[in-house]
Amino acid sequence: MLKECLENVRRTAPLIHCITNYVTINDVANVLLACGASPIMADAAEDAAQITSGCAGLDLNLGQLHRTGLEAMLLAGRKANELGHPVVLDPVGVGASDFRREAALQLMEEIRFTAIRGNASEIRALAAERHTEGGVDADAADAVTGTGLERDAAFVRAFSARIGCIVAMTGSLDLVADAKRCYLVENGRPEMSRVTGTGCQLSGLMAAYLAASPERALEAAVSAVCAMGAAGELAWERMREGEGNAAYRNRIIDAVFLMSGEELEQRARFRAL
Amino acid sequence: MLKECLENVRRTAPLIHCITNYVTINDVANVLLACGASPIMADAAEDAAQITSGCAGLDLNLGQLHRTGLEAMLLAGRKANELGHPVVLDPVGVGASDFRREAALQLMEEIRFTAIRGNASEIRALAAERHTEGGVDADAADAVTGTGLERDAAFVRAFSARIGCIVAMTGSLDLVADAKRCYLVENGRPEMSRVTGTGCQLSGLMAAYLAASPERALEAAVSAVCAMGAAGELAWERMREGEGNAAYRNRIIDAVFLMSGEELEQRARFRAL
Amino acid sequence: MLKECLENVRRTAPLIHCITNYVTINDVANVLLACGASPIMADAAEDAAQITSGCAGLDLNLGQLHRTGLEAMLLAGRKANELGHPVVLDPVGVGASDFRREAALQLMEEIRFTAIRGNASEIRALAAERHTEGGVDADAADAVTGTGLERDAAFVRAFSARIGCIVAMTGSLDLVADAKRCYLVENGRPEMSRVTGTGCQLSGLMAAYLAASPERALEAAVSAVCAMGAAGELAWERMREGEGNAAYRNRIIDAVFLMSGEELEQRARFRAL
Repeated sequence: MLKECLENVRRTAPLIHCITNYVTINDVANVLLACGASPIMADAAEDAAQITSGCAGLDLNLGQLHRTGLEAMLLAGRKANELGHPVVLDPVGVGASDFRREAALQLMEEIRFTAIRGNASEIRALAAERHTEGGVDADAADAVTGTGLERDAAFVRAFSARIGCIVAMTGSLDLVADAKRCYLVENGRPEMSRVTGTGCQLSGLMAAYLAASPERALEAAVSAVCAMGAAGELAWERMREGEGNAAYRNRIIDAVFLMSGEELEQRARFRAL
Repeated sequence: MLKECLENVRRTAPLIHCITNYVTINDVANVLLACGASPIMADAAEDAAQITSGCAGLDLNLGQLHRTGLEAMLLAGRKANELGHPVVLDPVGVGASDFRREAALQLMEEIRFTAIRGNASEIRALAAERHTEGGVDADAADAVTGTGLERDAAFVRAFSARIGCIVAMTGSLDLVADAKRCYLVENGRPEMSRVTGTGCQLSGLMAAYLAASPERALEAAVSAVCAMGAAGELAWERMREGEGNAAYRNRIIDAVFLMSGEELEQRARFRAL
Repeated sequence: MLKECLENVRRTAPLIHCITNYVTINDVANVLLACGASPIMADAAEDAAQITSGCAGLDLNLGQLHRTGLEAMLLAGRKANELGHPVVLDPVGVGASDFRREAALQLMEEIRFTAIRGNASEIRALAAERHTEGGVDADAADAVTGTGLERDAAFVRAFSARIGCIVAMTGSLDLVADAKRCYLVENGRPEMSRVTGTGCQLSGLMAAYLAASPERALEAAVSAVCAMGAAGELAWERMREGEGNAAYRNRIIDAVFLMSGEELEQRARFRAL
């Protein structure tokens, strides 16, 4: 499954339209190129719908949200829905500002998402429609841990059922669920949180995987989560003396670039809950 | 010629004003510093003309175009024309959206460009004023190949004659022409297309080369194309195990930083067609 | 002092709100993560004040200024003042455009800054309210050198007294002063000016240091300047064959990531003037 999902991206080279924050926009573009997809970043209302028409998938990211970008997201999202393209929402910092929360709710009302990917605080804020205080990083109290797995899986499945799309709640442990099934993914390294934008990169990657394997969306989403986590592990093993989070950032993207389907299969640690 | 053009950049350290997309803006700034120039990025209508007044060259890039950025481009472009500064247009994704195509045509009508640099699909879209579907990467069908060189050279020369500026159509083979002469450049690596923004970087580099050697604009443009391609080759030779497109991105800029005039002369593979 | 300031950042992991240019926004985010702080970038007027409420410090950077960003800066700055958070101003290119100068003056009138950090040309332009021509890099004529130290220190102290905040004028030599005391910092490498955004990174770092040690603001500012300079030195020592300014950019952030309090103490070269 994982191997096929990875190879479908390489084979079909889906063009992914990203409307995303400027902090990590370059990394999202490079990770899309790394996995075999092709990025186009266009966030003006003037051409968002037309650009998305020529693409195979859409990635909407609320980090550093602006009014004009939100307008472009709505236009592109509607067009992608019309054309049946997969659409991913990354609700960065959604609990930290009313503006972002209201934007997320408006987007979820007007656009059918294929998947929503966020950290535990973001997904919980979105589900509860509540305000949190922790910026763009997850609160420790919200994190998925070994002890509350069943409860967390039930929460993610229920949220997925309510909103009608795949939910990926990622962190040191990742849960990826639709209304009926929930997978636990245990790949990744804690040091990934010291690199800005690994979450943004994963959302971009997920849009590419969904675009390349639309008929098996949950499997594609799980594969993307495993691939990003495996890249974080491989990259960490390749770190050399004197290297820190900037080198790690590059090595993660490089690991996505170099990863074969076989390597992904061997590395992946996931199971149905 | 190449050596002198490279050394003129190092010697005069031209300040280059870039109004460019946010995907690759950091790379464009660092490649300008790498070649010996100095970047300033300013894309507000409020100060675009004044900033350009203190510079030696201007680089306008349509990737991720916004209405406000277009306004700044028009103001900066007119001022640069007034002052006789070289101006480069990089029509990123011009075939993928009416907004970008119309912006490009408006810019070409209101501003005298010294050079336009794009991939084969972008240059053909600009010349034909037609819509394409391939996002920001070139379609294989549009690429310059060994078999149609004479025809492609005639096309680029004719387009240059029509619009009155140097045209650089770059890809696995590069054509750089004015109305009378066309050069073929064979430097570069196919892997450069797996790094976002190598085209954007080349356009920035070209603005620096043109600013440093204004009296021999075609030679300066050819030198910039050779330098970028040579950097891609040198960078590829320096790649180590475990490195992918993110490392390659850094190594390309590093190769521009380290390149001497002699090295450029030795590496360059170009000829008049 | 330095060790304690560095360790306070690691221990308290302050969340820093940055309204900053898009050229170096990713580097600023990664250097904040490197030093142990956490970044949030939010520059929309819609949520700037709310975001800053959940943070511990604010960094305002005028590089690539836009009207909407300025509005967000004013809103965030007032809120940060209300809450007693440290606020840093980085007046990038303030001498190069009336728009930026007027924005800086408006910000200085409406917001109480804890520290202003700029290169010699920027600080002199701000103090003199004059126009300069050199883009975003410092003019050689403005630089602090060994011969005019006493005069430069008096200038920086007097400017600090006039505006009521710490002034850090950085370059090959750095002066960091309040109204009464001025420190000279001699860390750093000239090659840092070949990497875009080392100044922006330092301003972000300074906001983190001020947020973590608010009761000793001048010492915190000096520590941040020493840490950035020391990172530049350590990074340069780690450079390998074939590496240039892009590798150096990564190695500087990596050095911030790896730096211990002891290492900072050993490396730091500063003294009261």
